[in-house]
Amino acid sequence: MTQTDRPAETLADALARCAGAVAAELERVIARAQPVSDRLARAMRHAALAGGKRLRPFLVIESAALFGVPMPRALPAATALECVHCYSLVHDDLPAMDDDDLRRGQPTVHRAYDEATAILAGDGLLTLAFELLAEPAAAPDPAVRIALVAALARAAGGEGMIGGQMLDLAAEGRFADAGRPAPDLASVARLQELKTGALLRYACEAGGLLGGASPSEIANLQAYSRAVGRAFQIADDLLDVEGDAATVGKAVGKDSAAGKATFVELLGVDGARAELGRLVENAHAALSGFGTRATLLREAAVFIAERRN
Amino acid sequence: MTQTDRPAETLADALARCAGAVAAELERVIARAQPVSDRLARAMRHAALAGGKRLRPFLVIESAALFGVPMPRALPAATALECVHCYSLVHDDLPAMDDDDLRRGQPTVHRAYDEATAILAGDGLLTLAFELLAEPAAAPDPAVRIALVAALARAAGGEGMIGGQMLDLAAEGRFADAGRPAPDLASVARLQELKTGALLRYACEAGGLLGGASPSEIANLQAYSRAVGRAFQIADDLLDVEGDAATVGKAVGKDSAAGKATFVELLGVDGARAELGRLVENAHAALSGFGTRATLLREAAVFIAERRN
Repeated sequence: MTQTDRPAETLADALARCAGAVAAELERVIARAQPVSDRLARAMRHAALAGGKRLRPFLVIESAALFGVPMPRALPAATALECVHCYSLVHDDLPAMDDDDLRRGQPTVHRAYDEATAILAGDGLLTLAFELLAEPAAAPDPAVRIALVAALARAAGGEGMIGGQMLDLAAEGRFADAGRPAPDLASVARLQELKTGALLRYACEAGGLLGGASPSEIANLQAYSRAVGRAFQIADDLLDVEGDAATVGKAVGKDSAAGKATFVELLGVDGARAELGRLVENAHAALSGFGTRATLLREAAVFIAERRN
Repeated sequence: MTQTDRPAETLADALARCAGAVAAELERVIARAQPVSDRLARAMRHAALAGGKRLRPFLVIESAALFGVPMPRALPAATALECVHCYSLVHDDLPAMDDDDLRRGQPTVHRAYDEATAILAGDGLLTLAFELLAEPAAAPDPAVRIALVAALARAAGGEGMIGGQMLDLAAEGRFADAGRPAPDLASVARLQELKTGALLRYACEAGGLLGGASPSEIANLQAYSRAVGRAFQIADDLLDVEGDAATVGKAVGKDSAAGKATFVELLGVDGARAELGRLVENAHAALSGFGTRATLLREAAVFIAERRN
C-alpha cells in the first residue's frame, strides 16, 4: 500500500464491482431510447445486459486508477467501450456474418427479436458509445473527451476492429480480398491485433487519457494491452479447441470448421500455453513502474491467460 | 451583397461545388481503410461515392456560411454527416430491412458485394463519421468538436434516426412495438422528424456550432431545418406515388404496398402540394434575419420541395 490509498481487493471482487457499475450505466443510457421505441431499447438491453465479464471496461477503469482516477470518473469511457464491444457481437452473430444462435448462453439478438431489430440495435449501441464520450461526465476537459472519441473511432473502424472483421471473413474464404491473410503466425497476429486487440488498446489508452499519463506511461500501457490482447486471443483459441459449449456459453470448434488458421493450430496446444506464459511476463514487465496500484491489472493478465470461458 | 463578400452563385453551381468537395473528402478518408482491407474500402466507396445530391452536407456548409465560415472549415462536419446518411442507406437496403436491389440507379452494396461486407461497410462509415469530427480539421476548438460529436450522436441514435427506423418498421407491421405509430398525421410527422428530420436538424445545428451562432440564430436554423425536413419527406412521398423508378433511381410505390400511412395518403396529392408551399414559406421566414447570405438556403428550400428525384 505504498502508492495507493485504495483498500486491497480481490480480482473477483473488483471485476464484480466494475461489472455492476457498467451494467447500471448501460441500463441508464439505453433507457433514453425507450420513449421512441420500446422494442429497440429492449433489444439493446438484451445485447448489452446479458452478463459478460466486462473485461474491457475493467481495463479502462483500472488503467485510469493507476493515475488515481476514481471509478465514477472512468465509467463513461468504460461504458462506451462496452457499447462498441456489444454492438460488434450483435452484428457478428447475424446470419450473414457468423450465424450464431447462442451468446453467453442466451439467444442472440436476431434470434430473440429479428434481424432488422438486431441490425438497428447494433447501430444504436455504436452511436450511443460516442454520445456517452461527448457528455461532460466522460471528462471535464473537452480536449480529453475529443481525444477519447478519436481513440475509440480509430480502434473500432476500418483501420481497427471492422478492418479485422473483414480480414477474418476473408480468412474463412468467404470472399476474395486483396488483404486475405496467409495462414502464418504474422498474419494471424495481425488479424488479432485488429479484430480484438484494437479495442483492448483503446481500453488502456482511455485510462491514460483520463489520468493525464506521460508518453512513457502511455508506451507501457500500450505494451501491457498488446500482451494482454494476444493472450486473450490465444486463450480464446484454446477454448475453441478444448472447451465445450455449455461452459464457454457459445458455439465452439467453429474456427477449425471454418478452415481458419489460429494461434493454437500454428503453435500447438503446448506452444500456445508457453506463449501465454511469456505474454503474462511481458504484461507484468510493462507494469513494473506502476507499483502496487497495478496489482489488479497484473492479476487480470493472469486471469485472461487462464480463463475457461 | 450587403452581408457577404461571396460572389453570387446559382444553386446548381453551389450544389455541384459542394458535392465535389464532399466526394473528394470521402475518397480521402475512406482510403485509410484500404491498407487493411481493400474490399472494405471498395464497399465503403461504393456506398458513399455513387453520386447523390449531397443535400445534407450542403446544408451544413451553407448554414456555416451564414456566419462567414468558409467551405473548407465546414467540410469535415459536412462529410461526417454524409457518412452517417450513406451508412443508414446501406443498412436500410439490406434483405432483412427494406431488401432493395437498386440505389441511385446502381446495385446496392449487398448486391454488388455481399451482406456481411455491407453490414461492415455501414458500420465502418458510421464510425468514420465520428473519427472525422474528432480531428482538429473539424474545428480548431475541442469544445466545438465535442459539441458536433454530441449533436451527431443524438441525431443518429435511438432517440433520432435509428429510433425512427424502428418506428418505420413497426408502421409496416413488421413486428409489434409499444411505440407503433397510429396512421394519423401527428404520428407520420413524428416518424419523419426522427427518421429523416434528425439528420437535417444536425446539418443546420452543425453550421451554427461552427459559426458560433447565438441562441436566437440557432432557433431560426432549427425552424428552417424543421420546415425543410418536412418538405423533404412530403416531396419523397409524392415521388413514391407519382415517380417512376428510372427517374427516381430507386424502387417506388413501396410505401403503399407496405401499408404505411404517408403525408400524401393523409393529405391527398393537392393537400400535400399546398403543405409544401406553406413549408417553403416557413423556411424562408426562418431565414429572414440572415439577409443575402441565406440566398442559397432559400433556394434550397424551393429545390427540396420541388425535386423530382
